[in-house]
Amino acid sequence: MSWTTEPRTSDGITERDFVIDGPGGPVPGVSWSPGDRPAERLLLLGHGGTADKRADYIGEVAKLAVGHGMEAVAIDGPGHGDRVVPGQAPGHDNFFEVWERGGGTTGIVADWRATLDFVESQRTPRPTGWWGLSMGTMMGLPVTVADDRITVAVLGLMGRWGPNGDDLMGLAPELGCPVRFLVQWDDEIVPRSACLELFEVLGSNRKTLHANPGAHAAVPAFEVVASVEYLDRYLG
Amino acid sequence: MSWTTEPRTSDGITERDFVIDGPGGPVPGVSWSPGDRPAERLLLLGHGGTADKRADYIGEVAKLAVGHGMEAVAIDGPGHGDRVVPGQAPGHDNFFEVWERGGGTTGIVADWRATLDFVESQRTPRPTGWWGLSMGTMMGLPVTVADDRITVAVLGLMGRWGPNGDDLMGLAPELGCPVRFLVQWDDEIVPRSACLELFEVLGSNRKTLHANPGAHAAVPAFEVVASVEYLDRYLG
Repeated sequence: MSWTTEPRTSDGITERDFVIDGPGGPVPGVSWSPGDRPAERLLLLGHGGTADKRADYIGEVAKLAVGHGMEAVAIDGPGHGDRVVPGQAPGHDNFFEVWERGGGTTGIVADWRATLDFVESQRTPRPTGWWGLSMGTMMGLPVTVADDRITVAVLGLMGRWGPNGDDLMGLAPELGCPVRFLVQWDDEIVPRSACLELFEVLGSNRKTLHANPGAHAAVPAFEVVASVEYLDRYLG
Repeated sequence: MSWTTEPRTSDGITERDFVIDGPGGPVPGVSWSPGDRPAERLLLLGHGGTADKRADYIGEVAKLAVGHGMEAVAIDGPGHGDRVVPGQAPGHDNFFEVWERGGGTTGIVADWRATLDFVESQRTPRPTGWWGLSMGTMMGLPVTVADDRITVAVLGLMGRWGPNGDDLMGLAPELGCPVRFLVQWDDEIVPRSACLELFEVLGSNRKTLHANPGAHAAVPAFEVVASVEYLDRYLG
């Protein structure tokens, strides 16, 4: 586990790459921090299916988080980004297979816990939150349940669906921290009913569902902004 | 239609009573305004079933609205508050009957439009919103559809249910303004599924559903505060 680049600062944001020794091999990641002060809070960003740690919208959320004085960290998910197996880039047809071969639920929990260990290794642990929709929830719900350093989460666009839908349904009752859960009312990928089923079984009594009209990837910008404000309020 | 008391100011809020000539008889109302400046925006407050224009939580929302520089106005709903017919105080058993005898959907739309005429009669019309849950939505959804002076609404805790459930389902597609719609996930009075059905058919493409765990009357305080902040943002 090590930094693989020197920190570079642009527009007030310091960016630095790292790599983690995951159970299935190296996991590349990136950290964004305020350029002018130490970050006293940490936000883990889980990207969606077929995207990666540097997807545009992950960068946007990272920028919002840094604007609130947080460090934001993203890694590539199983079989995604720099972890793509040649000839097996993730798509609609092979998503289940890519997720499983890349390590699945167990693997990604280990990857993220190792990431958290690494990022926090040289300092006092900080209040930590999770932000991740769609595959970002396939990763983040299990990680948040497994690691009590994470004390608040933004999840959504996921439900009793996909390669780890049963894992999610089984683990959700153990999720006790505050959660904001986003649903797209006209989701053409993960059916609304599957999302509502997952929200239903989340164990937290501080869970709030926000639903907006539109397709899977059409989460309104105001909802994204508000989701980071929500995390800001809870990461005391 | 006239003011029935002189304005009285306490804790920075000026309160004044009025009465409207409704189609079914006099409709008493109350107005709350900032004590120190003219209110440039107006918020109509619809109380819930068995409550009235001076219910504690209506007073709380009025206080929040005044804090944002708005005037807030409430009237008694059909068969409620000062409009109770002796021996027919609204309760669980007779709610349908009280609502209908008090004037029902048609009557309450006329009552509220007359209220708006009165309150705005001596000034330039102001940006106007609606806030009303449960019976406050039974009133507010039809009023908002009928009167285009109302340009944003907070609704919820209501659905395809109750004495005017069919009216609501029929009118909802005509509701085109921004709406925040609150749902209580464990609503023991208006079933969650009935609420989701109503949200589904709301015509606005700027509609957002917020759902929280708990019973009908257990809307979290943070959600009430946020609902008035939402109206504040839209009442430009």
